Amino acid sequence: MSLRSSFGRLLKQRAGSTLRVQKRPAHSVALIGAPFSRGQKKSGVDHGPAAIRDAGLVGKLSRMGCQVYDLGDLNFTQIPNDELYNNLVKYPRSVGSASQVLADTVNGAVAAGHSCVTIGGDHSLALGSISGHTRQYPHLCVIWVDAHADINTPLTTNSGNLHGQPVSFLLRELQDKVPQLPGFSWLKPCLSRSDIVYIGLRDVDPAEHYILKNYGIQYFSMRDIDRLGIQKVMERTFDHLLSRGQRPIHLSFDIDAFDPTLAPSTGTPVLGGLTYREGMYISEEIHNTGLLSAVDLVEVNPLLGTSQEDVAATANLAVEVIATCFGQTREGAHIVFDGLPTPSSPDESDSEEQVRI
Amino acid sequence: MSLRSSFGRLLKQRAGSTLRVQKRPAHSVALIGAPFSRGQKKSGVDHGPAAIRDAGLVGKLSRMGCQVYDLGDLNFTQIPNDELYNNLVKYPRSVGSASQVLADTVNGAVAAGHSCVTIGGDHSLALGSISGHTRQYPHLCVIWVDAHADINTPLTTNSGNLHGQPVSFLLRELQDKVPQLPGFSWLKPCLSRSDIVYIGLRDVDPAEHYILKNYGIQYFSMRDIDRLGIQKVMERTFDHLLSRGQRPIHLSFDIDAFDPTLAPSTGTPVLGGLTYREGMYISEEIHNTGLLSAVDLVEVNPLLGTSQEDVAATANLAVEVIATCFGQTREGAHIVFDGLPTPSSPDESDSEEQVRI
Amino acid sequence: MSLRSSFGRLLKQRAGSTLRVQKRPAHSVALIGAPFSRGQKKSGVDHGPAAIRDAGLVGKLSRMGCQVYDLGDLNFTQIPNDELYNNLVKYPRSVGSASQVLADTVNGAVAAGHSCVTIGGDHSLALGSISGHTRQYPHLCVIWVDAHADINTPLTTNSGNLHGQPVSFLLRELQDKVPQLPGFSWLKPCLSRSDIVYIGLRDVDPAEHYILKNYGIQYFSMRDIDRLGIQKVMERTFDHLLSRGQRPIHLSFDIDAFDPTLAPSTGTPVLGGLTYREGMYISEEIHNTGLLSAVDLVEVNPLLGTSQEDVAATANLAVEVIATCFGQTREGAHIVFDGLPTPSSPDESDSEEQVRI
Repeated sequence: MSLRSSFGRLLKQRAGSTLRVQKRPAHSVALIGAPFSRGQKKSGVDHGPAAIRDAGLVGKLSRMGCQVYDLGDLNFTQIPNDELYNNLVKYPRSVGSASQVLADTVNGAVAAGHSCVTIGGDHSLALGSISGHTRQYPHLCVIWVDAHADINTPLTTNSGNLHGQPVSFLLRELQDKVPQLPGFSWLKPCLSRSDIVYIGLRDVDPAEHYILKNYGIQYFSMRDIDRLGIQKVMERTFDHLLSRGQRPIHLSFDIDAFDPTLAPSTGTPVLGGLTYREGMYISEEIHNTGLLSAVDLVEVNPLLGTSQEDVAATANLAVEVIATCFGQTREGAHIVFDGLPTPSSPDESDSEEQVRI
Repeated sequence: MSLRSSFGRLLKQRAGSTLRVQKRPAHSVALIGAPFSRGQKKSGVDHGPAAIRDAGLVGKLSRMGCQVYDLGDLNFTQIPNDELYNNLVKYPRSVGSASQVLADTVNGAVAAGHSCVTIGGDHSLALGSISGHTRQYPHLCVIWVDAHADINTPLTTNSGNLHGQPVSFLLRELQDKVPQLPGFSWLKPCLSRSDIVYIGLRDVDPAEHYILKNYGIQYFSMRDIDRLGIQKVMERTFDHLLSRGQRPIHLSFDIDAFDPTLAPSTGTPVLGGLTYREGMYISEEIHNTGLLSAVDLVEVNPLLGTSQEDVAATANLAVEVIATCFGQTREGAHIVFDGLPTPSSPDESDSEEQVRI
Repeated sequence: MSLRSSFGRLLKQRAGSTLRVQKRPAHSVALIGAPFSRGQKKSGVDHGPAAIRDAGLVGKLSRMGCQVYDLGDLNFTQIPNDELYNNLVKYPRSVGSASQVLADTVNGAVAAGHSCVTIGGDHSLALGSISGHTRQYPHLCVIWVDAHADINTPLTTNSGNLHGQPVSFLLRELQDKVPQLPGFSWLKPCLSRSDIVYIGLRDVDPAEHYILKNYGIQYFSMRDIDRLGIQKVMERTFDHLLSRGQRPIHLSFDIDAFDPTLAPSTGTPVLGGLTYREGMYISEEIHNTGLLSAVDLVEVNPLLGTSQEDVAATANLAVEVIATCFGQTREGAHIVFDGLPTPSSPDESDSEEQVRI
């Protein structure tokens, strides 16, 4: 759908009556690049923002009628001597500092009235985007679309990578289980266990599963999607989060939620992920609530994958998710018309036909 | 399933009792090649009929027990001076003329008692096949399986390609919005808005969406298929078209309804299409109504795609759709038996065993 | 999910309180390699056991907590002068002899209290594994996951390959239709028509369809899965097999049940198969019954496919099916904890932070 050109043409119809077009209310979107990679091991995910921009995100959102305020890429200061915490957890000061910068930026953008799109970068950044977002909307809820639960604590993590732990820092109920990490003193837990729903899980560590079950956190694994279908999963997600009242939604979308055949350029792919259509359906449904306030799109790593096609497919998929979150739809319906153009006059068409045949 | 050989072997069983086979009633199928490409821009779709034939369509239908009357490929006369209509709409005289030829051919084939299969060629040909078909069955209904709605008028089209417009010419309700095009004077609108159902839409222009919504045309987008499942979509399709009485079905199937990974060799592929299984299910269900009277299979373009495998996959898929429309089934059940063969006598088997062990 | 390392780490947590882990009860699994290929034409399926082992089956099961008793690969004696039966059926003495050896081995393993995993080899081996299994559990039931019904008799087979016929030998109701084959005198029919359910059928010969319908055998074709969804298919499968009481389940899983894009390295691939997720769902559901007693995983042929990636994907898929049958889950939950580790003391973390920042 090339909306730009079609929109333009409709305004300058060359024949018949003029087409009266009503523009729909525009989203105002602040775009934040977060080229951060120290929440995990593989180099390249810091090039994610560039890859997603190159795939045409800004143009696409603009053509859809969004007003895009591109805040550029954040500049994360290097943290010297960022030693392991507890001989295991990697780069705590770097992750803490970068997330703090992002939190401030998201806070400012939301305060200015924008919807906020953060393109990563690894998923440890959700520490910042969600923290910053809650400063404006303390009662927001989170939909976390991911193959992984990212809810290890620094004491249960096996890899030591902080991109597998952000949710444990954010949940109030887990605070007695989470040590204070160097670089994290700014961070206050800001979500309750009932404020988050997971979709797409299929690689959950034993301790993570224990947390999900013991703390009664709502999740829909791929098995649940197989069992219920994506339509019911979204219905139950909104029931869980919105049944006691409308509130802003923060969508934290890890591209590895998709099947690796669709999103190969990512650090921790897992077989059996979301189809393209399921991903679009999730995004459409979230858009349709009218409550989406911020989106993270993370873990696109253009240095992974076996070909340029792999990278392009992954980055394009990220763009499709974001565009759908802001109103792109498989059904059309971007523009409201007052009526269809009608032929100028029967005579004109007739004469034309006589001349040319 | 190699039915030919299996059927043959069953008739000449070498041991045990003879297998009594009852042949099922044969479909009589007229096959029309329509190598036409001027409804769109990309060269190659005029080689679609050859590609579909090469993929074994006639043999497959014959082995299934259909009587195939191959009418060969239509010969479309060149239209000189086929200038743009309204500085935009391309090749109106060529499309009009080719469709007129096809309409006459389909009309004749249906009048002669055949089911009619038109292999394209681009989707502008549906102007002809549906028009011709309605001459014999004015009350027929249409199931239009496609990524696109093909319902722009010559005044709303952005590309000017007539393969994106045929439905607007066919619907009575749209006639005051559709100018008379050179080459189209033979064409009379022959469908009402309630006579058509779309399945598979996912790339709908704004004006097309306006038409679908404003004229109350029933459609099932990919989102609807995700939401309802293909089983319910087919149920509702038949409810919509057949609840007030049985009538002939015209299936107009654009190969781009399938996901591009399955049907890459087509001119306007769109991500997130039908799975192979959904395509077969649609075709099985239509066959099972017993009402299918004509099929268009269009937009196979063997010059597109990145390899010979792409072309073969696309053409094979076209063959599978058509074969399934005429009774191929994933469950078997092609032949009715009176009984299974039984071993000749226990003694024979025993003696044989004694000899050889 | 690298369970081994995660399990290990949890036991030697370096900080905070000790994590108390309760090991779940272990499965005791006997693994039997059955490198047999004479039930069909294509060479290479006798290398299936090696390919599945190389893909890490034993390690994976062990890390999940299973006790694996690897009985190695069976040694099938060559049968000289194994002439055609009835000028058509191939290698009856070889198939009969190999299945007899396998039957004895499975019988012994089940008698010793193991769950039994047979890795093939072609599907004619199910003659042996099911026969042997029924010696211990005469009332067992069979779930046969396959693109094909494998229920031709030696008198209806078209190819003559015995891997397309094993079920006809096993069903009591079919015995008057099945001749005594040389090499098969040891074999007694051991299942009734209501003891088996098929899942995944999509290439069924006419005579096979006649048998399925006429003998009232329960099957779910791909069309049924499209129609009902995999969740309902499993529900109905268990209703059919277990509604009158719990009994051991024998799962006979042909890798060609999966779509050829997922399992290309197999002898008779058919389009439109199970998705990865459907295959996992089937296996999870069977595991969850707690009744699984034996598994066949057959028809992995590492000499087929177009690349090493094809072979690896096919073999890995076989490993995933088996691991899921024995408790691997997409949700996690492999280990039961008494509680999460807690940080040692607030002071320690604080001081650490002061030192390093």
